[in-house]
Amino acid sequence: MSPTMLEFWFDFASSYSYVAAMQIEDLCRAADIPLIWKPFLLGPIFELQGLKDSPFNVYPRRGAYMWRDLERLAHKYHFPFRRPTHFPRSSTLAARVACILVDEPWCADYVRRVFVANFGDDEDISSREVLSEIIDGLGHPGASIIDDATSESKRGLLRANTSRAIELGMFGAPNCVVDGELFWGEEALDDAIDWARRVALKAPS
Amino acid sequence: MSPTMLEFWFDFASSYSYVAAMQIEDLCRAADIPLIWKPFLLGPIFELQGLKDSPFNVYPRRGAYMWRDLERLAHKYHFPFRRPTHFPRSSTLAARVACILVDEPWCADYVRRVFVANFGDDEDISSREVLSEIIDGLGHPGASIIDDATSESKRGLLRANTSRAIELGMFGAPNCVVDGELFWGEEALDDAIDWARRVALKAPS
Repeated sequence: MSPTMLEFWFDFASSYSYVAAMQIEDLCRAADIPLIWKPFLLGPIFELQGLKDSPFNVYPRRGAYMWRDLERLAHKYHFPFRRPTHFPRSSTLAARVACILVDEPWCADYVRRVFVANFGDDEDISSREVLSEIIDGLGHPGASIIDDATSESKRGLLRANTSRAIELGMFGAPNCVVDGELFWGEEALDDAIDWARRVALKAPS
Repeated sequence: MSPTMLEFWFDFASSYSYVAAMQIEDLCRAADIPLIWKPFLLGPIFELQGLKDSPFNVYPRRGAYMWRDLERLAHKYHFPFRRPTHFPRSSTLAARVACILVDEPWCADYVRRVFVANFGDDEDISSREVLSEIIDGLGHPGASIIDDATSESKRGLLRANTSRAIELGMFGAPNCVVDGELFWGEEALDDAIDWARRVALKAPS
C-alpha cells in the first residue's frame, strides 16, 4: 500500500505560507513522510467568504500583528524577510508554474525561491521576467516552462487545485492535509506531521 | 528589579483561550516565569473591527475548522471538550469575577473551572448560579464574591483591561504579552515563554 503522505497547500501571496514553505520539506524528510506540493489560490476562497481582499488588509489590527509576527518568525527560523511594498501580490502565474513542477525534484527549490523573492527581496512575483529569471537560475529554461504552464491544456491544473481546496474546507493558507484531515496555519505543521506518523503506525504495511 | 512576567489575556467566551488557559500555568511554572491573569472582553474589539459576532460565526468555514481543531487539541492535551450548544456565551460576569481574583492563589483554579464549564460541560457561564456554584466548590463564598465583583467600585476593572487590550493591538484571544511584545493564539504560548526567557537573560539582575 502507499505510504501516508502530507499534502502542503499554499499560495505564493500568503505570508504564513512563506514561513511554512521554508520548513515543510525538512520536517517531512526528518519524519520520513512523502511531501506533495499543492499550489492553490486564496482569492476565490476569500471571495466565497465575502472578503474582497486579504483578511490582513480587511482587518488592519490583524495585519499589523501579522507583519510583526512574520519578522519574529523570520528571525527565529533564519530566513530573509523584507516587508513587501505590495501585499498581496498576484500569485496566479507563479502558482500555474508550480502546478506543472510538482513532480520535479527541483519543485521545492522553485517554491522557496519564489517565496523569498516575494517576502525576502520584495520582488514582483506576478512578473513573467522575475519568474523566468528564477527558473533560469535553477538551471531550467524559464521562458519555455512558463509558456507550457500557461498553455490552454495546463491552465486547468490550478483551477482544479483551488476547487479541491474549497471542497476540503480551506479558508486560508497554508494548510496540510493528511489522510483527509485538515491542518491550517504555519503553527500546525508539527501537528500535521504527528498525525501522519500516527496514521502510518496504524496502517498495515 | 522585578522579574520578567507573562501577562495572559483571555476571554472566557473564546474557544482557543480555553485551550491556552489549561496549559499556561504549567508552562510558566516550568519556565519560572511569573504569570499575570488578564481577563478582558473580545466583544468591543470585534466591534472595533466591524464584526458583530465572533469571526467563527461570521466566517462559518473558519468556525467549522475551529471546532474540529478544538476536538483534536482537547484530545492532545487531555482536557474535556463538548461543543457548547451556544457560542459565544456572554463572559462579562465571569470576567468581572476573575478581575477581582487575579491576586488570589486560587485564581487559576477559578479560571480553569469556568472554562471547563463552558467548553467541557456545556454550562451557561453567564449565569450567576453556575458561577456561584463554581466558587463555592472551590471553598469560597460565591454569592458575596459575585456581589463584590459586580459592585460599582469594581466594575471598572474589566473595562480598563479591555481598553488596555485595544491599546496593545489585540484583535482576538488568547494573547500573551511579555515586555510589551504581543503573542496571539494558543499556538504562540511557547514563543511567548521563549521571549520571556530571553528577556530575563538580558536583564541585569
